[in-house]
Amino acid sequence: MLNDIVENRLIASLVQGYRRSPLQANGLHETDAEILRLNDACSIAITTDSIAEEVEIGLYEDPWLIGWMAVMANLSDLAAVGALPLGLVLSEILPSDFSQESLKRLQQGIRDACERCGTFVLGGDTNAGTKLIITGTAFGLNTEGRFLTRTGCRPGDCLYATGSLGTGSAYALSVLMTNPGGENSEKPVDYRPVARVREGAILKRFASSCMDTSDGVLATLDQLVRLNRLGFELTAPWNEALDTRVREMASERRIPEWLFLAGQHGEFELLFTIPVRSVALFEESALAGGWQPRLLGRVVAEPVVRISINEQLHVLDTGRIRNIPWTAGPDPGKQLEELLAMHTALAGHEQTFYTALTNS
Amino acid sequence: MLNDIVENRLIASLVQGYRRSPLQANGLHETDAEILRLNDACSIAITTDSIAEEVEIGLYEDPWLIGWMAVMANLSDLAAVGALPLGLVLSEILPSDFSQESLKRLQQGIRDACERCGTFVLGGDTNAGTKLIITGTAFGLNTEGRFLTRTGCRPGDCLYATGSLGTGSAYALSVLMTNPGGENSEKPVDYRPVARVREGAILKRFASSCMDTSDGVLATLDQLVRLNRLGFELTAPWNEALDTRVREMASERRIPEWLFLAGQHGEFELLFTIPVRSVALFEESALAGGWQPRLLGRVVAEPVVRISINEQLHVLDTGRIRNIPWTAGPDPGKQLEELLAMHTALAGHEQTFYTALTNS
Repeated sequence: MLNDIVENRLIASLVQGYRRSPLQANGLHETDAEILRLNDACSIAITTDSIAEEVEIGLYEDPWLIGWMAVMANLSDLAAVGALPLGLVLSEILPSDFSQESLKRLQQGIRDACERCGTFVLGGDTNAGTKLIITGTAFGLNTEGRFLTRTGCRPGDCLYATGSLGTGSAYALSVLMTNPGGENSEKPVDYRPVARVREGAILKRFASSCMDTSDGVLATLDQLVRLNRLGFELTAPWNEALDTRVREMASERRIPEWLFLAGQHGEFELLFTIPVRSVALFEESALAGGWQPRLLGRVVAEPVVRISINEQLHVLDTGRIRNIPWTAGPDPGKQLEELLAMHTALAGHEQTFYTALTNS
Repeated sequence: MLNDIVENRLIASLVQGYRRSPLQANGLHETDAEILRLNDACSIAITTDSIAEEVEIGLYEDPWLIGWMAVMANLSDLAAVGALPLGLVLSEILPSDFSQESLKRLQQGIRDACERCGTFVLGGDTNAGTKLIITGTAFGLNTEGRFLTRTGCRPGDCLYATGSLGTGSAYALSVLMTNPGGENSEKPVDYRPVARVREGAILKRFASSCMDTSDGVLATLDQLVRLNRLGFELTAPWNEALDTRVREMASERRIPEWLFLAGQHGEFELLFTIPVRSVALFEESALAGGWQPRLLGRVVAEPVVRISINEQLHVLDTGRIRNIPWTAGPDPGKQLEELLAMHTALAGHEQTFYTALTNS
């Protein structure tokens, strides 16, 4: 079932033949960061993430954002296992024509992200290259040896997000596809994810499963479905969890709101499940920690994602959605076209949206 | 003094403005890997290294070697601080035209290197890109919280290498510059460094300073000079520490043997110093561990590198040698030319070598 997804097959083929460390506490795909158990009291979480394709396709152009994301993408993985970040190392491939000004902005983004999350650059490596590529590797501590995994939820558990959703898709849309309505004065989407480190530390006490939305909300739910062999019903008013600017953009561009959960450039929130018996204490702890979790729905026995669209509950083919980059190719216009076709098939009679794709 | 070296200036400029972790136990440039003290009994070593430029300039073409080096370059840094490797994560940028066969060889190289040093791939990240780039990040444990540093040697200490030297330079020469003598049947240089992990663990008990030769022997000595404000005299028959094939190549190509210490593609041995009072016990422990350290010379008070060339002791301008990639540019022919000019200035009357540079 995991291998229905091209990306899962790719990962499985890459690790095939490697022996696993006897100290490694997580299985393949089971956690957002790798966990190494040093002793009963202490395990280490480690994760690596390169900012490469995002630069290559023009999604990230501002060096500040590239630096910020190189840090945040990694810290988000640590947050999703409930680890306390200890620091990170960075490998920077710098193009020979990279200006001093760009380098400064890159470093400022790295520095701002570290300060925002209270962590540190410990060291790194640099190489000259043709394209800017930043690889971060972060590591953190799991006190008491405990950590969050993607597996363990049960039917009936409540599904939440740590914050508002859809900004990753909306940002990608605004950068990669100008509004075919021609409104060039479209208000830019503020995209500056903050890894949910403090939230992850609270979730470690309550959550029955947790994963970050680095690949978007539906890709995350799809992976949780495959790993847990359970499903999710997004029956709560999930669209209230969308960022305000995202809902505005959906309306301006006449794109169905749920499609902002389907893009695979994520918002780096955490999706997590809480057993009903723990909900009251969890919500209290979250409030005490200064945040408001967004209820999205429930865990259900049938291993599919159902979402209410205009008060009708629809099953989404999340596997098909995740494979769109492979089936539709890299063109964001083609990818959106396929998502819109899916929407038409689900809720065709409301097809009043976004008809000017080819103008983009 | 450190900042006389372009690379040191670059590193200093890259970390400028970053706050240092209060847990970080090493200073900038002071160790081959970053050290984070978790508690009195335990510190973690972490290091990151990308194989990028080596692929870009055609130095590494075989995917097996690229995989092997992505692991070994990192494990060598752990060895140089005396850490026990716990594992590594890999970020792979794979070109779209990378064949299945190449991918298999890459993975085989990674796997072989891990098995050779008893360590594990814990996880990773993949991106599509234009050029193959592999970034490894390894981490290890420093039991008892102790670790080796580049600083701490004293005049009189003995200078050693863990194994035979010059293979990195000889390999680069054989790949990047065909023999102008026209002997295309030149025997290839076997280049397959093994990180000196076991040796590092022994050195932790004895060495007063330690650094790996990832950038070549003279670059390593130069950095040790700048950090310790002490010098080295290579008065032992250091050329006996050269690999047999290296000495053959020096003779075939009529290149002075010491130039094989000057190239900045290293052999990933450790250079280290042992206080005289510990030499006997150290050598005994090394032998018991199954290896034969190579004595190169001594630590001296004057902060320069002196080397005996044909029984004459010469001061080498190692700072100039390290800056050659910036002063002579990326062309290996131009770089060798500058080294040969240095040799002529030092020992000009023996100028019987390698006159056909422009034919290469």
